[in-house]
Amino acid sequence: MIKKQNSIKLVVYIICILNVSCLVASNSIKNAYELDDIFSAQMELIDQRRVSWLEKAEQAMPELNHKIIKPVSIVSVEKDTGKSFQGWKTVKAGEVSSVCNKPFAPGDSFILDFGDHYTGNFCFSLCSIDNPVDAPVRLEFIFGEVPAEVGDSFDTYCGSLSRSWLQDEIVNIDVVPQTVKLPRRYAFRYVKVRVVASSVSRKFGFTDFEVETLTSANEDKLLPFTPKNERQAELDRVSLTTLRDCMQTVFEDGPKRDRRLWLGDLRLQAQANYVTYQNYDLVKRSLYILAGTSDKKGMVSTCAFEYPKPVRGGDSILDYTALFAPTLLDYLEASNDKETANDLWPLAVKQLEFVLEHVNSDGLFIDPGNWWLFIDWNNDLDKQASEHAIIIYSLKAVCRLAELLDKKEQVSFIPAMVSSMKSAAISNLWDSNLGLFVSGANRQISWASQSWMVLAGVTSSEQARMCMANIEKYTDAQKPVTPYLHHHVVAALMEAGYHEKAMAYMNNYWGKMIDLGADTFWEVFVPGQDFLSPYNGYLINSYCHAWSCTPTYFLRTYKN
Amino acid sequence: MIKKQNSIKLVVYIICILNVSCLVASNSIKNAYELDDIFSAQMELIDQRRVSWLEKAEQAMPELNHKIIKPVSIVSVEKDTGKSFQGWKTVKAGEVSSVCNKPFAPGDSFILDFGDHYTGNFCFSLCSIDNPVDAPVRLEFIFGEVPAEVGDSFDTYCGSLSRSWLQDEIVNIDVVPQTVKLPRRYAFRYVKVRVVASSVSRKFGFTDFEVETLTSANEDKLLPFTPKNERQAELDRVSLTTLRDCMQTVFEDGPKRDRRLWLGDLRLQAQANYVTYQNYDLVKRSLYILAGTSDKKGMVSTCAFEYPKPVRGGDSILDYTALFAPTLLDYLEASNDKETANDLWPLAVKQLEFVLEHVNSDGLFIDPGNWWLFIDWNNDLDKQASEHAIIIYSLKAVCRLAELLDKKEQVSFIPAMVSSMKSAAISNLWDSNLGLFVSGANRQISWASQSWMVLAGVTSSEQARMCMANIEKYTDAQKPVTPYLHHHVVAALMEAGYHEKAMAYMNNYWGKMIDLGADTFWEVFVPGQDFLSPYNGYLINSYCHAWSCTPTYFLRTYKN
Repeated sequence: MIKKQNSIKLVVYIICILNVSCLVASNSIKNAYELDDIFSAQMELIDQRRVSWLEKAEQAMPELNHKIIKPVSIVSVEKDTGKSFQGWKTVKAGEVSSVCNKPFAPGDSFILDFGDHYTGNFCFSLCSIDNPVDAPVRLEFIFGEVPAEVGDSFDTYCGSLSRSWLQDEIVNIDVVPQTVKLPRRYAFRYVKVRVVASSVSRKFGFTDFEVETLTSANEDKLLPFTPKNERQAELDRVSLTTLRDCMQTVFEDGPKRDRRLWLGDLRLQAQANYVTYQNYDLVKRSLYILAGTSDKKGMVSTCAFEYPKPVRGGDSILDYTALFAPTLLDYLEASNDKETANDLWPLAVKQLEFVLEHVNSDGLFIDPGNWWLFIDWNNDLDKQASEHAIIIYSLKAVCRLAELLDKKEQVSFIPAMVSSMKSAAISNLWDSNLGLFVSGANRQISWASQSWMVLAGVTSSEQARMCMANIEKYTDAQKPVTPYLHHHVVAALMEAGYHEKAMAYMNNYWGKMIDLGADTFWEVFVPGQDFLSPYNGYLINSYCHAWSCTPTYFLRTYKN
Repeated sequence: MIKKQNSIKLVVYIICILNVSCLVASNSIKNAYELDDIFSAQMELIDQRRVSWLEKAEQAMPELNHKIIKPVSIVSVEKDTGKSFQGWKTVKAGEVSSVCNKPFAPGDSFILDFGDHYTGNFCFSLCSIDNPVDAPVRLEFIFGEVPAEVGDSFDTYCGSLSRSWLQDEIVNIDVVPQTVKLPRRYAFRYVKVRVVASSVSRKFGFTDFEVETLTSANEDKLLPFTPKNERQAELDRVSLTTLRDCMQTVFEDGPKRDRRLWLGDLRLQAQANYVTYQNYDLVKRSLYILAGTSDKKGMVSTCAFEYPKPVRGGDSILDYTALFAPTLLDYLEASNDKETANDLWPLAVKQLEFVLEHVNSDGLFIDPGNWWLFIDWNNDLDKQASEHAIIIYSLKAVCRLAELLDKKEQVSFIPAMVSSMKSAAISNLWDSNLGLFVSGANRQISWASQSWMVLAGVTSSEQARMCMANIEKYTDAQKPVTPYLHHHVVAALMEAGYHEKAMAYMNNYWGKMIDLGADTFWEVFVPGQDFLSPYNGYLINSYCHAWSCTPTYFLRTYKN
């Protein structure tokens, strides 16, 4: 026993030493370039500005637009294993009028179909059929983005995220008649209504179902787009619905679940927004919230909660941290709002400190082991190469920001550092035999690595084309799981000059969701794996997820 | 088959004839006295005034008083079969602080004890313990007036009233921290809180539990009372709590269940109110609502719903209809508000039409079979004698109202009619051998019949004393089930001059509830029958029921 304890102690000791070396990172490129003074100067500015950033976020609070939408029909959900998405199909069961002004009793239920996905407040009226209703009406509501949510039971859910995200309510209504607006917001196309309890002798009925939609997207400002074909029209429409329903008082990741601002998700939403609804203030507010809730070390929030007041979420993702500068650059280029970009500049520079900490003096990113590296919801993915590329991507964005803001002298170290990191990538992560980038000790081949390396401009144009062509043929490559990474594949194909290939890839992947009945694009989608979930529970997946809305970005940006 | 059908037809035919004769009641005392013109004249006035009555009800809308009450402890409920009321006792399990600012997880639960019964809104705050809470918090609340409601499961409830009256809620709270005020009103002493679901990794906690009480009783106006002993003090205190918690924007029957204005219940509440909180406007409003929602035949509402706008309930109770005039008379005598009494006079007179319809030309009440006769929650009780007495009681009240309002000439028929009905009672319903009133074809003996006959003054003082003494000895008599009828027994004992007996009866019956832990008096109580329920489900019984609040009336009215 004693020996075993001692050996455990030794292991712990070694791990501690390794961790300390990791945290101190005395051999990081940041130290080699002696950047401490630069980052300290930015930290001072961040501390001076943090409060005003939150004030500016508040000032940019968007007005939410409302529309009243009525359900289009009553549907039933029927088991359709192996054919319909997740084994459920909806079948029209009647007109909405068939459930209005009719007596209902405990156990009765029906499903409203609103015909499309909406984010908003569900409203309905209760009426008495003959005599006044003499007991409260107890109702259950289940809101579904996809048929499975109103088909399968929530009772067996045992995923890794809280069951509280599943959109159901038990509501007791004391007074009949009355119009009821459920106070919580839901994201849904389908609403299953079930009568749990009601007066034994006095019948009540329903009327006037509707959703009061909520979005900070303004349809009047939507830029025109002429699709070349029906599929393009569909891809654009579903993208817009997805984006619209995630545009609230920040860019939310998904209006059903999380319902909050994530930096990496914001970047893609903002890109789609610039070519569609052009709500620059919403991007500005979102950036200011992430900036204003940066921690005392100056690290931007990976995600932030808005209410009751903006606060930093507990998670930090290294690649999201790196993507702050690119997101700010996109905003500046789209809006030409130099004031905001100047204001947030110190934070963009400061983020480099956190990512460069883990780039060694040879210019190679080494996974520190104590960071959440995201890239994609794929636990098998080795993320070294992608992170390495994203850091280069970030450095280049800061450099470009410096040019636009006339601050090049502040980041004069970047070109040499980019060059060093590119060399390190080619030396360590490029397999010239395969014509592909590899990642990690096991030299893993993935779509993620190729895409990010191409987007980071590590390669020549020729190499970029080569690796994007090679990865297609490399059947053992780790493939993307989320539309978030699929986006970067399409972007990389575009970057590599494969316009047609990119469009075909997009048509194929996002088009498949449409073929499966998607009204909005899903958080996670791997064709043929309908029940795949990063949370071990497909019911908890978000089926209107903003990082999936970028077909509209590609269609409207790359028109030829 | 044909023969059988024919015989059924014959039976139906006979029943129809009987019913028609019943409905036409050509032999009713009303016709004998040729009262049609009188009732027509009143009907005209009712139709003219009905709208203004509802306006006056609105004008008398009381202000609700609030108090913030904090829970006094955390309790557990423990099985205590055969000893504690309904087999459940509460045991202090800790201070309220023991559940505040501590992390909670799904499945955790505790019971708050507010130390007394309150009607109001339940409030609490949620806080995050360390990191921001990243998922909605799903909570279950069960509100209990008595320990059984937080001890037994609601799931097996199968009573005859809707399960929706059971006070439980499932609530989803999106934002933490925040203070939550549940929008529905509850009546409770105990609150069971259970965490259904919450963030898997981020802990939340509770703080600041409280109830914001609601009552139109004003403690500042409470008349003083000096109890003679501890039991009197207890009876008065529990009566006051019961009355207070039922005094809302009308006199509700029970703040947990029904939550509405019933005429018969109002009468007793008003009597208790006149000697305690003296909220005359609340009686006025209640009377005007019942009057303003009278039906097109001029029948006052037996019960009325207040919201969204006052409306007549579907039920009509004959004895309650008869009790409108006595209730108005009590109000006039207590408040001296002749304006209201004059205004409602036509309705008081008009109610006689509906009750006299069923009094035959010999002056005897005959159960028409198509009315709800209440008297008490006792299905075995024959109600003829009680109803007969209540009609006399009503006639006398109209007569007394006429005197006070100087309208005797309008109801000059009453004295002779009272005399005729008294004679009919003595001839048909008095058993001189037993010295007791009997009721119905089976000559049933009950406490109800004796009490109401005495209250109606059918007997001489001597006879009254005799029958109240005899009923005590008649062990097979139908006994009261509800405090509503027990009230009338006590009142009859007082009327018969048995002051001490009346007080002892009251101490014994209501005192037993106190001994069993009642914070407020119960809707139904038969000693030894803890689970008795008119609705086949003790969990649905109201345990703060206004018709049970009258010990304070007796204590304060009969001081010597």
